[in-house]
Amino acid sequence: MNDTTHKVIFQPSGSRGQIRDGRSILEASRELGVDIESVCGEKRTCGKCKIRIEDGFFEKFGVVSSPEHVSHRRPVEDKFFTPERVQQGYRLACTAKIHGDIVVFVPEEARAGGQVVRKAVTDRKINVNPTVHSYYIEMPPPTLHDPLGDYERVCNALEAQHALEWPKMDYGVLLGMSDTLRDAQWKVTVSIWSGGKEPEIVRIAPGKIKRSLGLAVDVGTTTVAAYLCDLATGEVINTDSMMNPQVPYGEDVMSRITYAMSHEDGIRTLRSAIIEGLNTLAARVTEAVGFTPADILDMSIVGNTAMHHCFLGIYPEHLGLAPYAPALHHSLDVKARDMGLGFAPGAHVFVLPNEAGFVGADNVGVLIAEEPWTKDDRQLIIDIGTNGELIMGNRERLISASCATGPAFEGAQIHFGMRAAPGAIEKIYINPETKEPRYKVIGKEEWNDQLSPDEVGAKGICGSGIIDAIAELFKAGIIEKSGKFVKGIETDRVRRGEQGDEYVLAWANETSVGRDITITIKDVRAVQLAKGAMYAGAKIMMQKLGYDALDRVVLAGAFGSYIDREESLTIGMFPDVPIKKAYAVGNAAGDGARMALLDANKRTEADEWARKVTYVELSVEPTFERQFMMAMHIPHMKDKFPQLKAALEEEGLGELVT
Amino acid sequence: MNDTTHKVIFQPSGSRGQIRDGRSILEASRELGVDIESVCGEKRTCGKCKIRIEDGFFEKFGVVSSPEHVSHRRPVEDKFFTPERVQQGYRLACTAKIHGDIVVFVPEEARAGGQVVRKAVTDRKINVNPTVHSYYIEMPPPTLHDPLGDYERVCNALEAQHALEWPKMDYGVLLGMSDTLRDAQWKVTVSIWSGGKEPEIVRIAPGKIKRSLGLAVDVGTTTVAAYLCDLATGEVINTDSMMNPQVPYGEDVMSRITYAMSHEDGIRTLRSAIIEGLNTLAARVTEAVGFTPADILDMSIVGNTAMHHCFLGIYPEHLGLAPYAPALHHSLDVKARDMGLGFAPGAHVFVLPNEAGFVGADNVGVLIAEEPWTKDDRQLIIDIGTNGELIMGNRERLISASCATGPAFEGAQIHFGMRAAPGAIEKIYINPETKEPRYKVIGKEEWNDQLSPDEVGAKGICGSGIIDAIAELFKAGIIEKSGKFVKGIETDRVRRGEQGDEYVLAWANETSVGRDITITIKDVRAVQLAKGAMYAGAKIMMQKLGYDALDRVVLAGAFGSYIDREESLTIGMFPDVPIKKAYAVGNAAGDGARMALLDANKRTEADEWARKVTYVELSVEPTFERQFMMAMHIPHMKDKFPQLKAALEEEGLGELVT
Repeated sequence: MNDTTHKVIFQPSGSRGQIRDGRSILEASRELGVDIESVCGEKRTCGKCKIRIEDGFFEKFGVVSSPEHVSHRRPVEDKFFTPERVQQGYRLACTAKIHGDIVVFVPEEARAGGQVVRKAVTDRKINVNPTVHSYYIEMPPPTLHDPLGDYERVCNALEAQHALEWPKMDYGVLLGMSDTLRDAQWKVTVSIWSGGKEPEIVRIAPGKIKRSLGLAVDVGTTTVAAYLCDLATGEVINTDSMMNPQVPYGEDVMSRITYAMSHEDGIRTLRSAIIEGLNTLAARVTEAVGFTPADILDMSIVGNTAMHHCFLGIYPEHLGLAPYAPALHHSLDVKARDMGLGFAPGAHVFVLPNEAGFVGADNVGVLIAEEPWTKDDRQLIIDIGTNGELIMGNRERLISASCATGPAFEGAQIHFGMRAAPGAIEKIYINPETKEPRYKVIGKEEWNDQLSPDEVGAKGICGSGIIDAIAELFKAGIIEKSGKFVKGIETDRVRRGEQGDEYVLAWANETSVGRDITITIKDVRAVQLAKGAMYAGAKIMMQKLGYDALDRVVLAGAFGSYIDREESLTIGMFPDVPIKKAYAVGNAAGDGARMALLDANKRTEADEWARKVTYVELSVEPTFERQFMMAMHIPHMKDKFPQLKAALEEEGLGELVT
Repeated sequence: MNDTTHKVIFQPSGSRGQIRDGRSILEASRELGVDIESVCGEKRTCGKCKIRIEDGFFEKFGVVSSPEHVSHRRPVEDKFFTPERVQQGYRLACTAKIHGDIVVFVPEEARAGGQVVRKAVTDRKINVNPTVHSYYIEMPPPTLHDPLGDYERVCNALEAQHALEWPKMDYGVLLGMSDTLRDAQWKVTVSIWSGGKEPEIVRIAPGKIKRSLGLAVDVGTTTVAAYLCDLATGEVINTDSMMNPQVPYGEDVMSRITYAMSHEDGIRTLRSAIIEGLNTLAARVTEAVGFTPADILDMSIVGNTAMHHCFLGIYPEHLGLAPYAPALHHSLDVKARDMGLGFAPGAHVFVLPNEAGFVGADNVGVLIAEEPWTKDDRQLIIDIGTNGELIMGNRERLISASCATGPAFEGAQIHFGMRAAPGAIEKIYINPETKEPRYKVIGKEEWNDQLSPDEVGAKGICGSGIIDAIAELFKAGIIEKSGKFVKGIETDRVRRGEQGDEYVLAWANETSVGRDITITIKDVRAVQLAKGAMYAGAKIMMQKLGYDALDRVVLAGAFGSYIDREESLTIGMFPDVPIKKAYAVGNAAGDGARMALLDANKRTEADEWARKVTYVELSVEPTFERQFMMAMHIPHMKDKFPQLKAALEEEGLGELVT
């Protein structure tokens, strides 16, 4: 160990700093506040602290990272990694010592307690009606008396043994067909895609195959999730996720569009990053269960419009400029090989349609998963990410809109904001009498008041905590309807800080950061802006549809699963609704991708509804400014909240709203 | 000039030799008997002697050729070449002096008098009903009130302005679409392919395009011919041809299959050669008329089964081994980009179907050009190349066969055989009384007896000359029905040579080779084998169809255009037929490719008839050996030739046949 320091960056959190030469990556993670799971106390026995050292130049950070910038692999590490993982640069964080600049990727499994925001598989009923079916056939070999061509021999067998029409032949399959047939002694499994108007052979595999595999992918701005499915049964065989490899080129959509526009080959760089990422993810998700990416016969993919354009390699410039017209709305069937994906020779990728410039294929995924057109309820579906995407309507009519909420709900632009990771304050209650808070930190079973201060270990506030905080400050009479701090409250929790008025949520001795964790007036304003935009959008949509009220609010997206519906209603994130009729549905976009993979009818539905949903461009609505201004209030300047009022009356706070 | 010599190889003739350093390529061509046109007498004013110095290693010849192995380009050459040609290594043969080993390609235009065997455009009525149509549209640009996607905007315009259904989008077109639309100010020409069940956009070009171009290609074993057509009018805009770039890897089909089988990457080498060749040819044929390969919207291609497999990149091993099953019979629509062809982004290549292992897409081209199924006449279509491909039948039934004629008809395996190039004896008449010949040499207007001996300049005998020679030797009573030389003929023209009995066709002083040009007993045997195989094949086909006679014989292929029908009937190349009903139709395979390019119905017809024609495998026919033996006789051991007899009777030779 010497005095030299190296730049160390942890992904996906982005935490970075200078670390002394010779420190272990686990030590570095603690210095930088990154949580890496470690059960054995660095005895190298638990293997929980698996991380990956990235290889290459990270332009954004100005760092060249290499697996060679850490100490050599120790024999003890071998038992924790497959040869593939070793090749990918996986190490134990407790064992690898830092001797140069590195970018460390912390996989979800190694994030202490797991990252709470994740894209898990939710349980939806999916009709299994896939686009690719596989058929086992046996054929007599050709003779001089029967010298029929190989393709025609296959088609004859398909016709005789499975009563199939002759499918057309994919060129990629054709190239290896003759050898496969002979090597397999004329016993093969033929996989046929019927996603177009002509069925097509997309793979001929020797013998009987075990399973027909498909991959559903949800490309989020931050996280890419993959679901490996059995096309015959619909079963999810394996799931995996990774940080979107485009993150180094910009954390949000606009900065990636800017990157593509301002760099020569920018779009090619972004595209290669995601395609390489998808190939890696496909390898991981298949190899873990004994298959290879070449076994993937079909794929479906969702993402917002910018992600959609980027993985297709379409220059996204026009998406970033008014009038934000996408290159296309329609779904697309692209050959995986045309996209650079190494799947079965003739495999297709079904790219779900976009609704509009800011309402992408991910939202269409939500749409086909939720099917609002089957319901009478006047429904609002909110997909909260960096943008809020709104769908409203019922079986009579559906409209959509996009509102720029900013990243406040993700914990960004908030003074003590952080991702939903251990140490984040996720739930808050403030006593209206004493103005004292109770709160719960991710990673602890107990609330803060059941722990001694040094056990609490609060580090920041995540999105759901922010919403709670604003709602509770309001209900406790600490902030006004307008968001301003009420003057003259007798508590040392409210004070004047650097940013103006602030409320101390956790005293320094309850934190792992050694400072008071506060909610500042600026934080309140950021949330007001975010929720105001969303509320105003919903309000204009209600006007368009002639609704005087909503019957149901569905919160899609992982974030929606963790927020408190009463608190969100209290701050006025959306118009009044019966509280029990506001609920979260998890990663509905990913579910939509999975449904489109497994059920051909869902593909038709996606195109149909992506067209039928009318997009409302909020920025050109003349009343938007006024609506937005009124919706900045908590919960609103003028609107009535009878359902919320009823709920608050139970807490004796009914007079807060009308 | 010094004493060093260099290896010089001329293509496509294959003539080669050691040439002294400093000689011009034109001088070398004369030493090696290669005819290069030169009008100005090497004054560098006519520009006729354009040749190309090849660049690269020619494994077959063991030669590294380079444009740098000749003297520097002279300014005078500039005016004869476009910059593209300069780049491709074109030079004037009279000006470039040899300073190293070179392979020289002599383009057809520079072959003195033109090579007689060529693949010219023949005049057939073609119905113009192309697979790609182009439509000019204008669109309003998107606004915030009308932010519809680009693809949908294009489709709306196609629907409104041309009443078209919405076509699907090719992925390659999609990538550049948004920029093209904006750069062209929303005025574009959209080209739509309708060769499948779903119409597809294959190009979006700015503004109004001048012409919609298509390319029909005939890949022969030796020559590749390309016809650039206007898809809207059917007009042939330009044609060009080149030596098949696979020739260095084997002159005939079997040697190329052997090459593919015996070399690692053999098939990839063969494929790259032809694909590169096709790209070069496409560039030449388009650029000469002010277009580029990117303007090619559709392509059709024919070739024998081995060429078919090679340009698709299918390993042809199984074609070369019994039971000779091809990878597929059916036609195929492949994206040009998948084949490595740089055409319009979404352009397709229509690959015509194969009939059987030895009856390929070229024969299907002949089939759709000739349409024997529309006729009552019992017809035999012979496509003479290295193999003879036979089609027989009429509207009731059609069958096909392939017979191994060997290359005798192409002048190979013949003692003084040569290609149909200047100096070749192409027509022969032998006086039955005096046994003296009259003959005509390609490149001379007059027959030999109208010229002084030193003006004749005979060099060898081409295919049509060989057939004439055997027929005339027979009619003059010099050879017997069995092919043997008749004993005791009193003429010094018949003598004993190195190979046995021979007939002197040209005395040494009438030649440019300084030796007597003879027809040897071995030559007679070679022709008997070739014609016997063809006749026996036709005979077995007649038996299969229950024909007692034929009504019509069509000679397809360039060679067929140059042979004398009476002489071919005299030697018994095919069964008796009214002489006027035996005629040549030129390059019908190339015509078939052109018809498939221009008329979608011809594509359907090709697939339909390639399946309906029953292939007869002659080698498994029990009577083949006997038929073959009998057909070796001139014209046949037993069969009667009443029509031929009637014709010969006019010459007083009726007693020769029965």
